[in-house]
Amino acid sequence: MTPDEFRRCGRQVVDWIANYMETVEKYPVLAQVEPGAIRDHLPAAPPELGEPFPEIMRDVDEILMPGITHWQSPNFFAYFPANTSGPSMLGELLSAGLGVQGMLWATSPACTEIETHVLDWLVDMLALPDKFKSTGNGGGVIQDSASSATLCALLAARERATEFRSNTDGLPHRLTAYASVHAHSSVTKAMMIAGLGADNLRLIPADENQALRSSLLLEAINQDVAAGYRPFFVCGTVGTTAAGSVDPLAAIGRICAQHALWLHVDAAMAGTAAICDEFRFIHDGLDLADSYCFNPHKWMLVNFDCDCFYVAERTSLIRAMRVTPEYLENRATLTSEVIDYRDWQIPLGRRFRALKLWLVIRSYGVEQLRSLIREHVKLAREFAAWVDADPDFELAAPTVLNLVCFRHRGGDERNQRLLDDLNHSGRVFLTHAKIGGALALRMSIGQANTQRRHVEQAWELIRQAATAAAN
Amino acid sequence: MTPDEFRRCGRQVVDWIANYMETVEKYPVLAQVEPGAIRDHLPAAPPELGEPFPEIMRDVDEILMPGITHWQSPNFFAYFPANTSGPSMLGELLSAGLGVQGMLWATSPACTEIETHVLDWLVDMLALPDKFKSTGNGGGVIQDSASSATLCALLAARERATEFRSNTDGLPHRLTAYASVHAHSSVTKAMMIAGLGADNLRLIPADENQALRSSLLLEAINQDVAAGYRPFFVCGTVGTTAAGSVDPLAAIGRICAQHALWLHVDAAMAGTAAICDEFRFIHDGLDLADSYCFNPHKWMLVNFDCDCFYVAERTSLIRAMRVTPEYLENRATLTSEVIDYRDWQIPLGRRFRALKLWLVIRSYGVEQLRSLIREHVKLAREFAAWVDADPDFELAAPTVLNLVCFRHRGGDERNQRLLDDLNHSGRVFLTHAKIGGALALRMSIGQANTQRRHVEQAWELIRQAATAAAN
Repeated sequence: MTPDEFRRCGRQVVDWIANYMETVEKYPVLAQVEPGAIRDHLPAAPPELGEPFPEIMRDVDEILMPGITHWQSPNFFAYFPANTSGPSMLGELLSAGLGVQGMLWATSPACTEIETHVLDWLVDMLALPDKFKSTGNGGGVIQDSASSATLCALLAARERATEFRSNTDGLPHRLTAYASVHAHSSVTKAMMIAGLGADNLRLIPADENQALRSSLLLEAINQDVAAGYRPFFVCGTVGTTAAGSVDPLAAIGRICAQHALWLHVDAAMAGTAAICDEFRFIHDGLDLADSYCFNPHKWMLVNFDCDCFYVAERTSLIRAMRVTPEYLENRATLTSEVIDYRDWQIPLGRRFRALKLWLVIRSYGVEQLRSLIREHVKLAREFAAWVDADPDFELAAPTVLNLVCFRHRGGDERNQRLLDDLNHSGRVFLTHAKIGGALALRMSIGQANTQRRHVEQAWELIRQAATAAAN
Repeated sequence: MTPDEFRRCGRQVVDWIANYMETVEKYPVLAQVEPGAIRDHLPAAPPELGEPFPEIMRDVDEILMPGITHWQSPNFFAYFPANTSGPSMLGELLSAGLGVQGMLWATSPACTEIETHVLDWLVDMLALPDKFKSTGNGGGVIQDSASSATLCALLAARERATEFRSNTDGLPHRLTAYASVHAHSSVTKAMMIAGLGADNLRLIPADENQALRSSLLLEAINQDVAAGYRPFFVCGTVGTTAAGSVDPLAAIGRICAQHALWLHVDAAMAGTAAICDEFRFIHDGLDLADSYCFNPHKWMLVNFDCDCFYVAERTSLIRAMRVTPEYLENRATLTSEVIDYRDWQIPLGRRFRALKLWLVIRSYGVEQLRSLIREHVKLAREFAAWVDADPDFELAAPTVLNLVCFRHRGGDERNQRLLDDLNHSGRVFLTHAKIGGALALRMSIGQANTQRRHVEQAWELIRQAATAAAN
């Protein structure tokens, strides 16, 4: 594709996306296809000769679109928001166009320096503890996801706890980790990957607000110590996936300090809310954490992937992750004047993801990002009030920010049927969780284009579906 | 940013990239800036209010560009190619525009099905063993990098070797792994991450062609067994980073079969060459492998990230990686009729990376991709012949495909100075490796726009710099 062809085809794709932005509401939110339906339309063999670009775009419309679940629809209330925006998409495009590798500072200095700088900006934007800034002993890095951030935190913790010997000798101790029953599945997965075993992660029960009970955490640690285990890591969650609950970081942090445990805080979904003064309470106690992450790719208009991961003391992370073969040696690395982000992550290669983050913050300014958060939280609180006022429904957990967990009072089966009917209609998409042993529907309000009318319509559909199912 | 603003700004970025494609040759290949030079131009605080898009693009030109090392320059001969192309960039843009999550089949069926289908196409395109197809017991998945693919292979191998108990209990055995001294650093890193310890990776010496000596592999395995270790994993490399050498897969595979070891083959850089009949010898013996990966994001016009990772028997991988919390349960997953790619990778979330791969294969057709490979290999062989014919220089390793390793006969210091002078000129960018204990310069020819004149010019510059340094 020549530069001129790229100009032509590029305009076609830009227009296609602009059109999609204008019409996304018209698609069924959840793809209504059976397994194999998309593959059935694809030829068994790849083409020997190139095909014209407009033909490929026709297949995008005809073959691909029926198999898309529309995460960008204002009627998408499932899982978590994965909102995107024009500046973010263009940042992604620019990054693809430059095609640089950011594994070392030397492989493209701007890629590293803009990342470091913007992640320092975010410390101020969210009023995170200063120790997470690169200007001291800490620093931030972009990961593909909170899963990877949690794994990196766990590895740094594992190495610090074993005096950096596990990496060379393998695992000598019986190490144990701790998180709430509502912690993300990636904590379990990280324990598996790190060779520590899922059974050595203690899942601590939650209180009536679905937050970790710190007294039980302390009990579990003491029991493990008495039994000859070596506690090393706690993951606190700010905004659990199931319930949006917030663990008591200050209490957890004091326990960690007392027992020399690494405290990682996973605020993947909720963290962005801290750009607003009034929501900063979610981070109370964060000054006691060793590491922290949140995802601009969820609720800050940056398209996936963009998780921001911070450590208070970067040396542990780097020591845990560094392998330097001869072919990556270079003067800048040797002088230690620079950050080489390959030592802050699992893979070696990395693309220029800071561009989209930089473009989003600059295009919107912090104030517009705050308005978006405030609007979503306001809508969630309104929705929660409607649920609360309806005798057929109940709230399944307190509504802290933008996630409303609720259920029909008719029991699990009734709620499952309600959910299936709603999602099958294509008009909204919600998902579920188990809270207090019973099914709950999750209304996650965070899509960039969701307005009051979409939330009102969703509530109307929910009530209608509940009534229809009763007849 | 409204759809209309997106149309306008999108065109600006498309034109900017087209212009960059036309002018990339004029930039110094290696960024000529000191540490901190880019950050110095960035404001200490993020903007409260949004800024106009053209102002941001001006900063891209003025602040960012001096800090870019131009991986897309035809004079980029360093590390490995990370070539991109118009169709790939537009696939990336479309993926950002759709903004779907591909963690489950249900979260966007097309995202999963196109990935599975195109990865099956590639089995045919590269004439890989049929067992890697999804239509049997195997299958392919896109990873961010070969590092992550190697880690996933190692984890599946670890679990298979411990009867899937390490994931729950932690590591009971003293497991040992094996790879050539020239294997990628990610094998060491994977051992560290997996809790197995870098010291338990045996780096087997290479022969005069820089390929793993299989007799020494067998010796090491036998020694470890005798000493009470449990060998479980071998990584064979097709196209080593340092020297481009190819390990003897057939001999290694026979040893693995005999000792029930998992054989992973890392063909990150070189694998793409197998789309040409005449280069398929690099995969001789691959039918004995349990897993395999290569990177279309290196040498197949797909921008980073796009590593294709295959397993012969997907159950082991899925069993090793699966964690299913309630909030991800859904009917399609329960019926097992679908692939949920979150169980094939480290993170949970994933974006629609198959789009760019699909667009590239369809836009170019297999034949044009073959031409590109053939041209690069031809140029590398010509360059190797020039080196060989010059009494001041020597080849440091055989030229198998597109990587020429060579050195000035004047010793390490002379070669280091030569390399520094060349890279400091900004006119070419090469990197180095240690081969046979001595420094070697690596001429990696794989950038999409590299033509004969660029390779000729590079050789001319190398000879001039060598002469200048002598005076």
